[in-house]
Amino acid sequence: MQSIGIVAPSSMHFAEPLALKSGAQIGDYTLVYETYGTLNADRSNAVLVCHALNASHHVAGVYADKPKSTGWWDNMVGPGKPLDTDRFFVIGVNNLGSCFGSTGPMHVNPATGKPYGAAFPLVTVEDWVAAQARLADALGIERFAAVMGGSLGGMQALAWSLMFPDRLRHCMVIASTPKLSAQNIAFNDVARQAILTDPDYRGGDFYAHGVVPKNGLKVARMVGHITYLSNDDMAEKFGRKLRNAAENNDYKFDFGVDFEIESYLRYQGDKFSEYFDANTYLLITKALDYFDPAREFDGDLTKALAQTRAEFFVASFSTDWRFSPERSREIVEALVSNRRRVTYAEIDAPHGHDAFLLEDQRYMNMVRAYYQRIWDQLQGAQA
Amino acid sequence: MQSIGIVAPSSMHFAEPLALKSGAQIGDYTLVYETYGTLNADRSNAVLVCHALNASHHVAGVYADKPKSTGWWDNMVGPGKPLDTDRFFVIGVNNLGSCFGSTGPMHVNPATGKPYGAAFPLVTVEDWVAAQARLADALGIERFAAVMGGSLGGMQALAWSLMFPDRLRHCMVIASTPKLSAQNIAFNDVARQAILTDPDYRGGDFYAHGVVPKNGLKVARMVGHITYLSNDDMAEKFGRKLRNAAENNDYKFDFGVDFEIESYLRYQGDKFSEYFDANTYLLITKALDYFDPAREFDGDLTKALAQTRAEFFVASFSTDWRFSPERSREIVEALVSNRRRVTYAEIDAPHGHDAFLLEDQRYMNMVRAYYQRIWDQLQGAQA
Repeated sequence: MQSIGIVAPSSMHFAEPLALKSGAQIGDYTLVYETYGTLNADRSNAVLVCHALNASHHVAGVYADKPKSTGWWDNMVGPGKPLDTDRFFVIGVNNLGSCFGSTGPMHVNPATGKPYGAAFPLVTVEDWVAAQARLADALGIERFAAVMGGSLGGMQALAWSLMFPDRLRHCMVIASTPKLSAQNIAFNDVARQAILTDPDYRGGDFYAHGVVPKNGLKVARMVGHITYLSNDDMAEKFGRKLRNAAENNDYKFDFGVDFEIESYLRYQGDKFSEYFDANTYLLITKALDYFDPAREFDGDLTKALAQTRAEFFVASFSTDWRFSPERSREIVEALVSNRRRVTYAEIDAPHGHDAFLLEDQRYMNMVRAYYQRIWDQLQGAQA
Repeated sequence: MQSIGIVAPSSMHFAEPLALKSGAQIGDYTLVYETYGTLNADRSNAVLVCHALNASHHVAGVYADKPKSTGWWDNMVGPGKPLDTDRFFVIGVNNLGSCFGSTGPMHVNPATGKPYGAAFPLVTVEDWVAAQARLADALGIERFAAVMGGSLGGMQALAWSLMFPDRLRHCMVIASTPKLSAQNIAFNDVARQAILTDPDYRGGDFYAHGVVPKNGLKVARMVGHITYLSNDDMAEKFGRKLRNAAENNDYKFDFGVDFEIESYLRYQGDKFSEYFDANTYLLITKALDYFDPAREFDGDLTKALAQTRAEFFVASFSTDWRFSPERSREIVEALVSNRRRVTYAEIDAPHGHDAFLLEDQRYMNMVRAYYQRIWDQLQGAQA
């Protein structure tokens, strides 16, 4: 299978204000997006792919001028891939508040003429979905063949099935959860405290000061990254291997790097702090914390999901301790209680939460088979 | 059962330098300690209790001038308690490098006339045990009835059984591990990075600048605290409860406190940052990372533990994901392979790693029964 090849982002400006769940609104805004494949004549083959914390509209392919810029789900989306772009018209949208092109904290607030910074309104999963629906309107897509996402992206897919029940045939929720646990929120708050207390954060207006709260972002990313990997996988990949093993295989007795795992995490943290926006990190973690569709139903997920009309594909990974299989099973059980059609795959995979992004034959085969079914349905509907 | 009542610390100065595992040495130093109960005539009833990261020599009782200063294991140690001070002579020692009285980073380095700060040498679990052994010498204790500890304290008990096999009859290792995992080290390094990158850390010499790296310490404590609690316990105690639930039960849409768990963790972090020393935190996490008695035996714990002579009590807690029961079983299996006498209790308890400090009837009964056995042995030996 080959990659979809060279791709390029588009952007669309929305002049009508968007009312947000917080009560605030965004006056006008731009969404950056990419599409792959061709929309068919009856506009029935569109699939929306929703991104997670550290990703964007750039789902598949590469940019002409950046040969290493492969999209984050390139193994999943492309010609002949599980989500086959020879069949489906795939859309990736960068969410509001992100730092990868769509209107976000580093953009100019028309009200002040200065970057939004911490004044960018907190956006929720539901706000993102509302903005995505406007893009779908503009692209002439009344109903998606599927809305699909992993982790935070899965929350968006779930929100689509609740907010616009008739605008998606299939809802694909992977490595996700109906709401964060106290432990999930706790890790997010550690990350936020690391950023907020970094003196270079400057109350969110660091752009004006020509600084970046790199130390805070680094610590935030390090703690986040630990929760993306499984304990076993970390043990196997790093264990207690020393960074300087080749030299003398001894401890350094200082606060530099002794172990490979320290080197790896610090490197990941440093890299992240060089490209990710601190305000975006803060607001995305809040969107995660706030997501809880059962909340308006006294915590009853079954009642919440009674609004859905889509068919569901839910998948989880055995070693994912961030959003464990148990959390996916809650979604499945609530759907089954509502007599919805639901396919559930609990995949035995070693790579923790990150597994949803990685190549795994059983996982890919499941998604491929499910898209075959969607395709067969579409053919039947056309026949 | 009543507390042991009013207690007071003692201190002992050691003029002879202590050679450390790192190759460095500490010229002279003071250890602060407390004792409870009475040493019997043949000096056979002494029990050494080793402390973990955030604790000290103050194991039981209260200080006369501080009615809320109850010792950290007061539920375990006292008259009629599982470790009964009517029978045993119990010693708690504050370890070198700590911030609770024994010589540590905030004390004056005789070589410079200024506080050690980051120049305080990195000390290991084995260095602590060597220092404790000198205190035992000074107190005239040739052989302990037991050396006991939880978590990092359990590592010290294990190190005693290896370094001084004939100086303890019983070794009691609770909620501990023969070595940290990559994930354990990763969390420690997040904590260290938070402290080291706090501008108020000032390379460890913050004392001279009249500041404290409170933000770094706060984040370090928050992430540590998450690993002390179980996921289930956190879910039950905090869940998604909002801090302002009584007011309007809505999200705040800012970066203040929304959830109870955020409030709790930030409070714990703030409190910790007001009394704990940043240099001590750094060096204790390194002592944790470095502990690995099997290292000199090509990673073979069975070979390492062949040096032991003591009888063992090992206990773990079902929901402890920091040092899970699996890690205790590694110790037990290595001991059994060496045909050592070992009692192992895997206790079904909801409170995660912190369970070793908490009241739990089954746990307390196990420890009580084990000390009864030690007592019976001592009576037999005297008869």
